[in-house]
Amino acid sequence: MVRLTKKISKKAGLPPGSLVHIGERKTEKPRIRFIAYNEERFEEKDLGSIEECSLSKPEPSITWLNIDGIHQVELVEKLGKIFHLHPLALEDVLNTDQRPKFDDYEQCICVILKMLTYNDKKNQLKIEQVSLIVGPTFVVSLQESEGDVFDQIRERLRKAKGRIRKMGSDYLAYALIDAIVDNYFVVLEKIGEEIEILEDELLSDPKPETSRTIHHLKRELIFLRKSVWPLREVIAQLERGESGLVKNQTKPFLRDVYDHTVHVIDTVETFRDMVSGMIDVYLTSVSYKLNEIMKVLTIIATIFIPLTFIAGVYGMNFRYMPELEWRGGYVFAWAMMIAIAAALLLYFRRKRWI
Amino acid sequence: MVRLTKKISKKAGLPPGSLVHIGERKTEKPRIRFIAYNEERFEEKDLGSIEECSLSKPEPSITWLNIDGIHQVELVEKLGKIFHLHPLALEDVLNTDQRPKFDDYEQCICVILKMLTYNDKKNQLKIEQVSLIVGPTFVVSLQESEGDVFDQIRERLRKAKGRIRKMGSDYLAYALIDAIVDNYFVVLEKIGEEIEILEDELLSDPKPETSRTIHHLKRELIFLRKSVWPLREVIAQLERGESGLVKNQTKPFLRDVYDHTVHVIDTVETFRDMVSGMIDVYLTSVSYKLNEIMKVLTIIATIFIPLTFIAGVYGMNFRYMPELEWRGGYVFAWAMMIAIAAALLLYFRRKRWI
Amino acid sequence: MVRLTKKISKKAGLPPGSLVHIGERKTEKPRIRFIAYNEERFEEKDLGSIEECSLSKPEPSITWLNIDGIHQVELVEKLGKIFHLHPLALEDVLNTDQRPKFDDYEQCICVILKMLTYNDKKNQLKIEQVSLIVGPTFVVSLQESEGDVFDQIRERLRKAKGRIRKMGSDYLAYALIDAIVDNYFVVLEKIGEEIEILEDELLSDPKPETSRTIHHLKRELIFLRKSVWPLREVIAQLERGESGLVKNQTKPFLRDVYDHTVHVIDTVETFRDMVSGMIDVYLTSVSYKLNEIMKVLTIIATIFIPLTFIAGVYGMNFRYMPELEWRGGYVFAWAMMIAIAAALLLYFRRKRWI
Amino acid sequence: MVRLTKKISKKAGLPPGSLVHIGERKTEKPRIRFIAYNEERFEEKDLGSIEECSLSKPEPSITWLNIDGIHQVELVEKLGKIFHLHPLALEDVLNTDQRPKFDDYEQCICVILKMLTYNDKKNQLKIEQVSLIVGPTFVVSLQESEGDVFDQIRERLRKAKGRIRKMGSDYLAYALIDAIVDNYFVVLEKIGEEIEILEDELLSDPKPETSRTIHHLKRELIFLRKSVWPLREVIAQLERGESGLVKNQTKPFLRDVYDHTVHVIDTVETFRDMVSGMIDVYLTSVSYKLNEIMKVLTIIATIFIPLTFIAGVYGMNFRYMPELEWRGGYVFAWAMMIAIAAALLLYFRRKRWI
Amino acid sequence: MVRLTKKISKKAGLPPGSLVHIGERKTEKPRIRFIAYNEERFEEKDLGSIEECSLSKPEPSITWLNIDGIHQVELVEKLGKIFHLHPLALEDVLNTDQRPKFDDYEQCICVILKMLTYNDKKNQLKIEQVSLIVGPTFVVSLQESEGDVFDQIRERLRKAKGRIRKMGSDYLAYALIDAIVDNYFVVLEKIGEEIEILEDELLSDPKPETSRTIHHLKRELIFLRKSVWPLREVIAQLERGESGLVKNQTKPFLRDVYDHTVHVIDTVETFRDMVSGMIDVYLTSVSYKLNEIMKVLTIIATIFIPLTFIAGVYGMNFRYMPELEWRGGYVFAWAMMIAIAAALLLYFRRKRWI
Repeated sequence: MVRLTKKISKKAGLPPGSLVHIGERKTEKPRIRFIAYNEERFEEKDLGSIEECSLSKPEPSITWLNIDGIHQVELVEKLGKIFHLHPLALEDVLNTDQRPKFDDYEQCICVILKMLTYNDKKNQLKIEQVSLIVGPTFVVSLQESEGDVFDQIRERLRKAKGRIRKMGSDYLAYALIDAIVDNYFVVLEKIGEEIEILEDELLSDPKPETSRTIHHLKRELIFLRKSVWPLREVIAQLERGESGLVKNQTKPFLRDVYDHTVHVIDTVETFRDMVSGMIDVYLTSVSYKLNEIMKVLTIIATIFIPLTFIAGVYGMNFRYMPELEWRGGYVFAWAMMIAIAAALLLYFRRKRWI
Repeated sequence: MVRLTKKISKKAGLPPGSLVHIGERKTEKPRIRFIAYNEERFEEKDLGSIEECSLSKPEPSITWLNIDGIHQVELVEKLGKIFHLHPLALEDVLNTDQRPKFDDYEQCICVILKMLTYNDKKNQLKIEQVSLIVGPTFVVSLQESEGDVFDQIRERLRKAKGRIRKMGSDYLAYALIDAIVDNYFVVLEKIGEEIEILEDELLSDPKPETSRTIHHLKRELIFLRKSVWPLREVIAQLERGESGLVKNQTKPFLRDVYDHTVHVIDTVETFRDMVSGMIDVYLTSVSYKLNEIMKVLTIIATIFIPLTFIAGVYGMNFRYMPELEWRGGYVFAWAMMIAIAAALLLYFRRKRWI
Repeated sequence: MVRLTKKISKKAGLPPGSLVHIGERKTEKPRIRFIAYNEERFEEKDLGSIEECSLSKPEPSITWLNIDGIHQVELVEKLGKIFHLHPLALEDVLNTDQRPKFDDYEQCICVILKMLTYNDKKNQLKIEQVSLIVGPTFVVSLQESEGDVFDQIRERLRKAKGRIRKMGSDYLAYALIDAIVDNYFVVLEKIGEEIEILEDELLSDPKPETSRTIHHLKRELIFLRKSVWPLREVIAQLERGESGLVKNQTKPFLRDVYDHTVHVIDTVETFRDMVSGMIDVYLTSVSYKLNEIMKVLTIIATIFIPLTFIAGVYGMNFRYMPELEWRGGYVFAWAMMIAIAAALLLYFRRKRWI
Repeated sequence: MVRLTKKISKKAGLPPGSLVHIGERKTEKPRIRFIAYNEERFEEKDLGSIEECSLSKPEPSITWLNIDGIHQVELVEKLGKIFHLHPLALEDVLNTDQRPKFDDYEQCICVILKMLTYNDKKNQLKIEQVSLIVGPTFVVSLQESEGDVFDQIRERLRKAKGRIRKMGSDYLAYALIDAIVDNYFVVLEKIGEEIEILEDELLSDPKPETSRTIHHLKRELIFLRKSVWPLREVIAQLERGESGLVKNQTKPFLRDVYDHTVHVIDTVETFRDMVSGMIDVYLTSVSYKLNEIMKVLTIIATIFIPLTFIAGVYGMNFRYMPELEWRGGYVFAWAMMIAIAAALLLYFRRKRWI
Repeated sequence: MVRLTKKISKKAGLPPGSLVHIGERKTEKPRIRFIAYNEERFEEKDLGSIEECSLSKPEPSITWLNIDGIHQVELVEKLGKIFHLHPLALEDVLNTDQRPKFDDYEQCICVILKMLTYNDKKNQLKIEQVSLIVGPTFVVSLQESEGDVFDQIRERLRKAKGRIRKMGSDYLAYALIDAIVDNYFVVLEKIGEEIEILEDELLSDPKPETSRTIHHLKRELIFLRKSVWPLREVIAQLERGESGLVKNQTKPFLRDVYDHTVHVIDTVETFRDMVSGMIDVYLTSVSYKLNEIMKVLTIIATIFIPLTFIAGVYGMNFRYMPELEWRGGYVFAWAMMIAIAAALLLYFRRKRWI
């Protein structure tokens, strides 16, 4: 389950720009993937250490550095030195308990997003932080662990598919953000399916676990919403692009991602609306079912109690009880008991209780 | 029932502008209807294939191309070539899991709406996507399946009724949007009737199915709302008309549709308010009814239990029980039992329980 | 009860400006009242037909045409010709399922309001549409049925009371709107009284009908709100008065009506707050009352069940049961039973259950 | 209890500026207190009638006229003549069912506020209307009944404490508003105490009256909120002071009152949040307590019912019942009964029901 | 527990700028810590009395005066004289029942914040007010009691760590605010843990105390929210920095604190969402558990009641009861009873009740 808070208290009291990793260590050794490309050229390699990376190239090209695993503070520190990054940007990258945000540090842009994945087996949402640092000729993307969301972009770069090789670092950043937002739809689809299964279960056969699943879904939607809401503002700020880094030809594409984000938010809100109504339906179903049982049982008991009383009366040992001596006493008693039961049944039926 | 999400994940990771159809295939073979008109002339035909369509006409006229069925990606691709449409517009047209939206691509405007129909027999809402691509001399409208909402506009064009033949493509686009929004009122009327029937049922004879119907209505209103809310902004953007495509004389009409949209939203909100109050009334009714039953049954049981105890006492087999020997013992026992029952009844009445 | 929707579907698909009456026919024959006045002159008559009306007067004066009953489409059509009204304005007048709105058609202003009346006997809210079409020298007011809200204005005009005869058509329009808004307070007062009666009933003796009355009130407040909310914007637009029809000296009065409207909205919201809290109080009261009953009854049953068991034991027919032979057996049994009952009572009291 | 609405319907249909008193008559005879002061001079007297008041003084000074009791329409009428007040201002003063508001009538400012007092004995909120009419050299304050909130300001004026004697009518108006807003904190404190008492009661020993007190508190907070919310806007408008009446040196003080008002609104919202959560805690507590009782009682009954059955079996009068003849039959029956009771108890304990 | 209101009524009616301490006295004797520094120099001492403090230094440096304990009105009065502070600023400092706020008094800035600490043992939130008065060369910080939140800043100053010694009073103010906001994360972490523990308890074994804990958490989140919400606006105003006191190089840091504040608010809202859903889960769990018990018990009772009736019938003492004379009568009775029990059990199973 998604943890409510991370150990951000480690950092309390430190001066601004202190580099401290906040979050779980999700991978053994960070993997550093280096890609450099321009319209003609494409180079791809895995770096053993961050020092191998260098920006100084004779020909103009875009460098994309993808780092999976950010728990090594020194790595991020060195990165900062190579790309001349602002210390506050580095601090944000290391703190995985961030709200999605957009920061404009003159020389570069820093975008922090949440990557969502859905574990089908455990029906669990996993939230991971992705940071993009975008400069005029480079993009550095940092993830908490290795994922496959960016693979299709690597493929497109390799095969020079679409316009990606012809455009600048801003378009690459857009492509990465788009890949992340597209992935939200995959997660929403899974959650949508879970909601529909739950809905059927709710109407056919509500169980105590159903209530827990509703609570679980509610909780996940709260986290989903927290991850997605600020994104809208982030992308809007990016598109407004006062920094000059985002070129005009990239803006229609950012507008498209913006629309997708609004759609995601809309869907999350719709899901919340639906799930919040479910707990009522659950309560209604459960209480109706139980009340039905109690009603039937109480009716049975109510019919037999007067009969047992009659039997009790004729079980008394008074010496002088005229009915006991009658020939048809026993039959009379039975007749009385059957009459009472019938009268009660009739009364209950008339009242539409049975 | 309206599905929560569509298989939009098919598209995750593809480069922007990739043409992929998202949604169900709702028709066998797309039907392409071609209408070209100006004030004097009117031409109407069904096209066998999209290639038959051509815009180059000697005399100035408006072309309206209506396509029912958008699952053939090639068709949409060819369409894009003929009308020189932006790839992002084509992508949006094919993806039926869109939020209603307005996009302004210099050479044309793209408006995406939801068409609502209400299946009377199944009491089910059907939501379908309609895309309008509006250029200076043409309107292309794309629907998922064949519908009859635009028939009256075709009729008006044929008979040159109203001002429609005298005005441009922007007015035709307005007329199509107006037809769709007018149709919302038909759907709202049906849902309104359903709510009123439900309300009567709720107050007269609440059943477990009532709770399900409330849930079902709530769900449909959530979807209705999701389809209608963004429309307001779409039409406002259209009216503001910074693209020059929308002429001033069409704007009062767009303002009128805008008012209708606000009215639709208002009504949807009113319905939501009403339905959300119903679940409470339902719970109250059900619990009141059941509690009444339980009360009566418990009172019957409570009266007989002490009487049965008395009977039990005189059914004991002690050798020395003076009452058993009395002449009037039996009558005395009955008197005692009747007295206890009467006392209890009196007490219950005094407490206003019966 | 207020209907949820009107048969607006009649109009779906018709071209804009089509004149169709939507709503119930509330009066037999429309009554047309004609008043013309200026500071010196006052003329009042009932017109047999709309044709008798004419604006062309030698001396400058204000004409007020009041029409009760709008189900005759031809009447409204003729009216449009005489006063040169915009077809969209006429369409709005005929459609009684409108949101209150303000439209500025250069030559005239069209204001659509809801008139509220409260039927004391049936405790029912009645909502009726009033349209005002205001030109430089005329006001046309159209109602669904004859009402008495405007009588005091007629009286003021006759007696030249206040400033009304000295001012223009905009002031007359203000006076009519003010009369309608003032009437809202009368309706709110009635509903306020109903809420207070309900509140007393709720705390003293909640009945199942109470829940229905709460639901009924909630429903009426939903409709009241729907009628009143948009009014605020309507009057604000009127006051901003970009059309030049509304003169500066009328604006402070419009500001006053605006304040009243805000007060009405405020009160409606307060009422909604109060009523929505009531259903909880009702549920609490009902369940508390019923639980009290069940508790007492269950306690009675619980005390007698062990006693009946004792009686049952000594009613067994075993040949060798020493107690049965004892002299004081019977007394012993009674003592035991009384002891058990006392112990149970003491235990219940200690637990503070009785 | 605060009435929901006042008899504002008395005024419906009258022309604007009609002077009608709306509200209860809360005092016998209006008391008119006259204070005139400047930096050197201070004059204070009770006026027998409004006619004794006159503004024409040789030396420049500020006049403060305090009127307790506004039910005499003529008094307000005369006041209007003496100070040349706008008829709409007078109308607002007389109508005690006003929303707090600010009106700027060129020659004077009219501020309408709600004064709150809390009756400790009856635990009841009392809301009274205070109107301030502020001109360049005078302040007229009108209250519904005599109160002591302004006494400290009179004292400060008498003793020339603080800056009050050195500043203009705008500062006096500020001082009066500040006194009223300060008094809100007194009322909030009382309500806060009531909420804390209620909270303790809720957790320790919830009673049916608790639910009523919650409802009562909720109701008072609704009214409090209605009185306080608009105040924010009123003071903001006053501070913006476009009329020139409010001098710059008074503005920091108005900003201070503004902050207080925001704090009051904040506290009211916090109280509403707390009280609205209480009804849930109440329901939970009550139902938990009652369910505990029912559980214990049902367990007792459930244990004895099988035992009574056994006793019943051996109370049957069949001629051939072998057990009855056994020597140890009776002991055997007891053993069986004890075994059954023990088994049930064990089962219940294992299920953690007892 | 956090008190709802403080004795602010003490101050009602006093002229503005009256110095009255509002709040509890939380410390014996105020502790005054004096630090003066510039890039080269650092001086730190505890002052015996406020008079020892003096700003007049030959060399330019920043003075930081930290006062723990503000219940001595004279101390604050003297402070005001030494630093030439505005009386309204002093009034705000003494009143601990303030909303976080920002005031700009030309010569200095006054920022009022809430410091939060969480008592682990009592699981209680403690809210304390911190005021910062920032002038061009000094910062005065006032707390209600001694805390350790500022210790790390003192350490950084002593060791000249980071940029703090090189920058002005505005950076020191930022550092203090940052320390306070960082501390919020520590509190949120604790509350987050409490929520997670509660959630587990809720799903595994809900107890009546659980409901109280939920109420307690809800209450604390209400107060947390009240303390944190206004902070956003306060820091935004500070950053906008129209007073000239806040230099441009400090602004990126203030933007960083602003982001943290938004994150804190976000987390508080997420917590509120989660806790508010818990009460429903609690109610569902409790009622489900209890209903299960009642069901089993009622089923046991229902099965035995008919059997007891049979036993009662054959316990009747009629002279002529043929079954009693039968050889196999007793066995027949048992058979009948077992058959009835089996039939009922089968019926209940078929109905899926057991």
